[in-house]
Amino acid sequence: MAHQVGPARGMRDFLPRDKRRRDRVLQTITKVYRQHGFDPMETPAVEDHSTLHSGLGGDNEKLSFGVLRRGLQLEDVANISDLQELTDLGLRFDLTVPLARYVASHRHELPEVFRALHIGPVWRAERPQKGRFRQFVQCDIDIVGDHTTLAEREVLVATAGALQALGVTDYQFRVNDRRLLTAVLAAAGVAPDSHLSVLITLDKLDKIGAEGVLAELEATHSGGYDPGVMAAFVQRAGTSIALEVDAVADVMSAEKDVAASLVSWASDVADVIGSDHVLFDPSLVRGMGYYTGSIVELAHPASGSSLGGGGRYDQMVGRFLGDDVPAFGFSLGFERLVEVVEDRFESDTDRVAVVFSEDISPAELLRVKKELIDAGHEVGVVAAKKNMGSVYSSLESQGYRAVALLQPGQGAAELEWRELDKSR
Amino acid sequence: MAHQVGPARGMRDFLPRDKRRRDRVLQTITKVYRQHGFDPMETPAVEDHSTLHSGLGGDNEKLSFGVLRRGLQLEDVANISDLQELTDLGLRFDLTVPLARYVASHRHELPEVFRALHIGPVWRAERPQKGRFRQFVQCDIDIVGDHTTLAEREVLVATAGALQALGVTDYQFRVNDRRLLTAVLAAAGVAPDSHLSVLITLDKLDKIGAEGVLAELEATHSGGYDPGVMAAFVQRAGTSIALEVDAVADVMSAEKDVAASLVSWASDVADVIGSDHVLFDPSLVRGMGYYTGSIVELAHPASGSSLGGGGRYDQMVGRFLGDDVPAFGFSLGFERLVEVVEDRFESDTDRVAVVFSEDISPAELLRVKKELIDAGHEVGVVAAKKNMGSVYSSLESQGYRAVALLQPGQGAAELEWRELDKSR
Repeated sequence: MAHQVGPARGMRDFLPRDKRRRDRVLQTITKVYRQHGFDPMETPAVEDHSTLHSGLGGDNEKLSFGVLRRGLQLEDVANISDLQELTDLGLRFDLTVPLARYVASHRHELPEVFRALHIGPVWRAERPQKGRFRQFVQCDIDIVGDHTTLAEREVLVATAGALQALGVTDYQFRVNDRRLLTAVLAAAGVAPDSHLSVLITLDKLDKIGAEGVLAELEATHSGGYDPGVMAAFVQRAGTSIALEVDAVADVMSAEKDVAASLVSWASDVADVIGSDHVLFDPSLVRGMGYYTGSIVELAHPASGSSLGGGGRYDQMVGRFLGDDVPAFGFSLGFERLVEVVEDRFESDTDRVAVVFSEDISPAELLRVKKELIDAGHEVGVVAAKKNMGSVYSSLESQGYRAVALLQPGQGAAELEWRELDKSR
Repeated sequence: MAHQVGPARGMRDFLPRDKRRRDRVLQTITKVYRQHGFDPMETPAVEDHSTLHSGLGGDNEKLSFGVLRRGLQLEDVANISDLQELTDLGLRFDLTVPLARYVASHRHELPEVFRALHIGPVWRAERPQKGRFRQFVQCDIDIVGDHTTLAEREVLVATAGALQALGVTDYQFRVNDRRLLTAVLAAAGVAPDSHLSVLITLDKLDKIGAEGVLAELEATHSGGYDPGVMAAFVQRAGTSIALEVDAVADVMSAEKDVAASLVSWASDVADVIGSDHVLFDPSLVRGMGYYTGSIVELAHPASGSSLGGGGRYDQMVGRFLGDDVPAFGFSLGFERLVEVVEDRFESDTDRVAVVFSEDISPAELLRVKKELIDAGHEVGVVAAKKNMGSVYSSLESQGYRAVALLQPGQGAAELEWRELDKSR
């Protein structure tokens, strides 16, 4: 067994420095969301195959890891007629499907309006590539049971609070409403069964520009829409639009009610978190098919793609109940956020290392360690060596800043403090 | 889809009250272990099948959930000759095997003496029964690379610190050493290949008593040992033994070196955490086959079985390296601990609920919520109803103690405070 072993393909270990950083980000997010009234909840990593493959998970269902049935015999396997007979359970691929299942399972134990904070790992059998992993942490908040746009307001204000606590200042919520997009498509004469594919093209506006979008529409849906209406929309969509009912309704060719609702909640959010942080983006589409109203994306210049996104999905959470339940949710992109938070967030000012010489008794060492812990430190201990340079260098790389040498003194042992090189 | 759905068999959801309690216990344990110099680390939930089934996991390997290979076709499955061809990955069943793999994978990135704090869920396909679940949290600390008994001292003192921080006071570490047990068996003439089965019988002393143990030995190993030596040991083992080298060496019929080492580290621990909390237990065996020296069990009167256990296992962590690496580890029984911590630990003094009337604007509500958050509260909001009794009752059951009614006042909206029934 002396060969080199690593974590499974596409999976990651975390060394202590990275684990500390991740824990710190996670604790900050959790603390702020709880302050904003979101209730921590938990679902298991494993769900029934039928729950995971109920059609709510979209394309992610195909990426699900299946769990092999227990107690299978070779002769059972030889006679199966469908691969699904091999698996009764699976690893969750998102937190939304388990949330919908949880709400159905515990409807009578939850408040009528349930503000859920749901954090945990999910697994997807994606082809491993740089920056994409098969286990990663999702961090979702959802308000279930509120049909008013107070949900939109609370979710965005709470998320802004989490970003602020993490020192992330250069962010922007781009907001839109699926119903406005639908109205544009209707006004442009797009048949309902072509809406989704036209939306997918519109979603590329920030990547391929207005000309590119119009060319792609012409190539794929020629004759299926009014080019003049579509061109007018795409040209306007690429420009900055003020958060005003008339401007929104105008560019979207929509009824004023939906535009007024969007402007109302987005303006309230802008009043609390700053108007630089909220932008109406008429071309915002969001990928998932289940959105029914408001949609949001969190943009940040340091992140190639978004730092999170969400929307209103009033017909999904209740699917296991056979009932519509209004819901608005947002998923913060934890893995990208960990990369974006600044290094100043890293400082471990209260960690100290005690370097003890070999003539210190274990009892003496325990006593000194306890004193430092009682004084509020995190205390590592390490044996002194002839080559103290290598000891200090190792402690530095572990993130220690302060070191205390423990050596026999006259009477009790004595501590001699020194600071490690701060430049690293 | 209107049928009732629940979590998968043997798996648990956690409602917010339980999740809060679990998080609080976990954060307290994490904080104290970090104060004692243990470094947080993480391994993925999924490991390669070959890692999980390397023989290090003992009987738990049989309880492993396998993950179905991706991309299998029906015709592939029909032709397999071994069920293992269906699975390339599995869910971890403990944290010790992944730790051994992690140390092998990152040897040169870790300090020479690595104090690991490793917390996370594990999965076992056990038959579900009361109090036994298929996903549960393990909470391990291990000191890897230290052959001295400073490791034993640090691990037990740190664990005592965590128990104290949780308000658990009525605990006892029972300590022993596998080498002393081996010496007893050798002195009693037990053949080496019978050691393990005799130890399993000795392990039952607290359940079936000295008479029961001697009767079982006679039934299973008659003629394979000296009844006089064994009877003398078993009689003494059931009584309280002082932490003194002569007493330990005497009852264990062992060389004084091992007894002296045990007494030395256990006495040092007793000096720090109180002598009531450390007991030499000559009959302590611990289940796993990989222990090579000191063994420890954490006993608590409110828990039927132990609250945790551990020991020295110098030949395991290095197995993936093809090298012996000294290690001493302890696993705190998180799931049992959550049940044992007292309710006073539950108080949520800083949570408040704002009950708003329908004539309060969302902007006004957001403003009030922000003020309360800035003042240090966790702030839930809930709409007022005609039947306020049901609103209060729901808030009480969610654990809220303080409520503020938000109603239009003269000018700005006004908050009216009230306390909820504390008796619940």
